Amino acid sequence: MYKLVLVRHGQSEWNLANRFTGWTDVGLTPKGMEEALAGAKNLHEQGYIFDRCHTSVLKRAIETLWIIQREMDLMWLPVERHWRLNERHYGALQGLNKTETAQKYGEEQVFIWRRSYATPPPPLEASDKRHPGHDPRYAGLSQEDLPLSESLKNTVDRVLPYWHNVIAPQILQGQKLLIAAHGNSLRALVKYLDSMSDDTITALNIPTGVPLVYELDNALTPLRHYYLGDPDEIKRAEQAVANQGKA
Amino acid sequence: MYKLVLVRHGQSEWNLANRFTGWTDVGLTPKGMEEALAGAKNLHEQGYIFDRCHTSVLKRAIETLWIIQREMDLMWLPVERHWRLNERHYGALQGLNKTETAQKYGEEQVFIWRRSYATPPPPLEASDKRHPGHDPRYAGLSQEDLPLSESLKNTVDRVLPYWHNVIAPQILQGQKLLIAAHGNSLRALVKYLDSMSDDTITALNIPTGVPLVYELDNALTPLRHYYLGDPDEIKRAEQAVANQGKA
Repeated sequence: MYKLVLVRHGQSEWNLANRFTGWTDVGLTPKGMEEALAGAKNLHEQGYIFDRCHTSVLKRAIETLWIIQREMDLMWLPVERHWRLNERHYGALQGLNKTETAQKYGEEQVFIWRRSYATPPPPLEASDKRHPGHDPRYAGLSQEDLPLSESLKNTVDRVLPYWHNVIAPQILQGQKLLIAAHGNSLRALVKYLDSMSDDTITALNIPTGVPLVYELDNALTPLRHYYLGDPDEIKRAEQAVANQGKA
Repeated sequence: MYKLVLVRHGQSEWNLANRFTGWTDVGLTPKGMEEALAGAKNLHEQGYIFDRCHTSVLKRAIETLWIIQREMDLMWLPVERHWRLNERHYGALQGLNKTETAQKYGEEQVFIWRRSYATPPPPLEASDKRHPGHDPRYAGLSQEDLPLSESLKNTVDRVLPYWHNVIAPQILQGQKLLIAAHGNSLRALVKYLDSMSDDTITALNIPTGVPLVYELDNALTPLRHYYLGDPDEIKRAEQAVANQGKA
């Protein structure tokens, strides 16, 4: 039986400002750091150990991982950063305030962009300074890999190669992995692992900073999964995520 | 022309307690964090950029690197941790107070252990709980790679394979590297790069937290090297290191 632990980063500066973030590289707020630390303490108290960590190339996930590594005294663990674990790219909405966007386009349209499975937000122009082609961290990517906008479906499609090529083989080698990532890159993994329908995944809210443990059999099929932490706290955290984006 | 930047970690908890540290995994003090931040600001102000970072598996070096990455907004850079960049292993002296050790064995003997090129301190027993074989981060190493004690010569001998196999090829590929490591693993590199004699390297004190820049030609022979920062500060930092271990 294998164990895999997923952690979604806590509150970022743009969660707080209620802006669409996507691939924008904003930091954690002090509250986001506290959320990461609370998750770290749960992992530490329950005696979790890891062999290797994976995260995105966005600092809110990396800082979350660093807080966990420091608290667990596991700063020496190898860490792999990869753009395929990045948050869903939010296209031309990146940087816009969610409430203003809801007032402008209607709550229903924003809900579709946020929660429909296959409808991406309006795309970025290649000339837009927000386009990832202007960022040195993506210099090694081909044009076709660089997203201009993503639906959750698009995110699933670019996360899964990382699962199949990197994460799954390491788990099958017996490595205990910790993945610190984002709401939608983690939903992409959860959808795949639990064979969820397109509708079910759009209603799933992963709370921030709460370790999500998957127990997997030899074929990496989930036996069960559970959150580490106080159930009432987890419920509140899930509800807080679901409430974002209302006008 | 290639550029390589080396940074020695700042004050650790055991620098402050005046204990022999070696491979003991102690954290930075607040002063050590300030030293790293000062170095980071110098790098940032002077427009340095990097493609990849290397560090040891000891948290005082890793935290130094994290502080630099955060300050430079380069948290997304790939980081390779390796035991070959660890501090010199101090054998059975690890954990002992330097002043007490000087009183017990004589200042001359301590000076020999600290500054002779080829005389290692007394070795650890394999059964000693300080032996690295008991630490999961070294689980993949062969018994012959695990040090029981090291002279600076021994440290040079285990750092150089990492230079030849990992660092040098990356530099020759054009990657701009930042190495955050320790007094003696960096002296090992500096001795090799500058073809220093065994006597010269023992008198060299690398100040903490001050970026040391090497400019290298196409054969990786140094053209020149220099510290980034205020010359008077650097002088003081070098003298502070030289003064350690006096009774």
